[in-house]
Amino acid sequence: MSDTLFPAPGSKSEQESGAVFAPKFGADGLVTAIVCDASTGQLLMVAHMNALAIQRSLESGEAHYWSRSRDELWHKGKTSGNVHKIVEISTDCDQDALLLKVEVEGHGATCHTGRLSCFYRKITFTDGKAALEADAGKPLFDPNEVYGK
Amino acid sequence: MSDTLFPAPGSKSEQESGAVFAPKFGADGLVTAIVCDASTGQLLMVAHMNALAIQRSLESGEAHYWSRSRDELWHKGKTSGNVHKIVEISTDCDQDALLLKVEVEGHGATCHTGRLSCFYRKITFTDGKAALEADAGKPLFDPNEVYGK
Repeated sequence: MSDTLFPAPGSKSEQESGAVFAPKFGADGLVTAIVCDASTGQLLMVAHMNALAIQRSLESGEAHYWSRSRDELWHKGKTSGNVHKIVEISTDCDQDALLLKVEVEGHGATCHTGRLSCFYRKITFTDGKAALEADAGKPLFDPNEVYGK
Repeated sequence: MSDTLFPAPGSKSEQESGAVFAPKFGADGLVTAIVCDASTGQLLMVAHMNALAIQRSLESGEAHYWSRSRDELWHKGKTSGNVHKIVEISTDCDQDALLLKVEVEGHGATCHTGRLSCFYRKITFTDGKAALEADAGKPLFDPNEVYGK
């Protein structure tokens, strides 16, 4: 897919300094997608995109990811209403990761647990032992109601 | 390594709601590490960590990643001086990604090209064609001088 939708990565110099968008897909055909809130900059989630997901996202202005667990194209928010409207996309030095700045529609929540962000627990490290701090946040929607699970 | 340093992931509910930090490593033994500036929230880079890199980071307070290209533990900034001092680490719902909020020492630059962030080019999409916008930023250090390449 990467061959047909986007050019293959060029030299190191072209990747880092060029104007050609040539995403460097991994062996699994995916790049990492970092999703941040366009207004606050807060990290909302980490996802993955293949060539088709990138193309659909660019064309529609709504984020499409590749669901590794379901092995299918994932139009984020299609079920929950929490669509990611893309404000800006950028790529990194070697073009194997994308940053999507988005506005979240619907409940304004991105995580499937109902929370605003998937990153809701800090890691503590005390006496050589790592643990997770309890989440003080409140879900913005009830996943049981939205996903019917 | 994951077996000895951290417990294996528990049930979905334990992963999402528990207080046990049990990173879910991929088949390659890595989790994704998202690195943001602790003060501004700006995304600086995307890296990868194995169990050892996480452990060393927690113990030292300085970010250690796993370099996939060199296949070795990478104490970020050891050569350039641009050490990542960790202010906070958090994990996401299924514990396969970490967010590191850091203060960047040295030149205050994270990218090996000398730039503050690895994400220095926006993707444009005009007439169905994607391209990269030229970077207007100025490198904060000269990679040739710092890395001697």
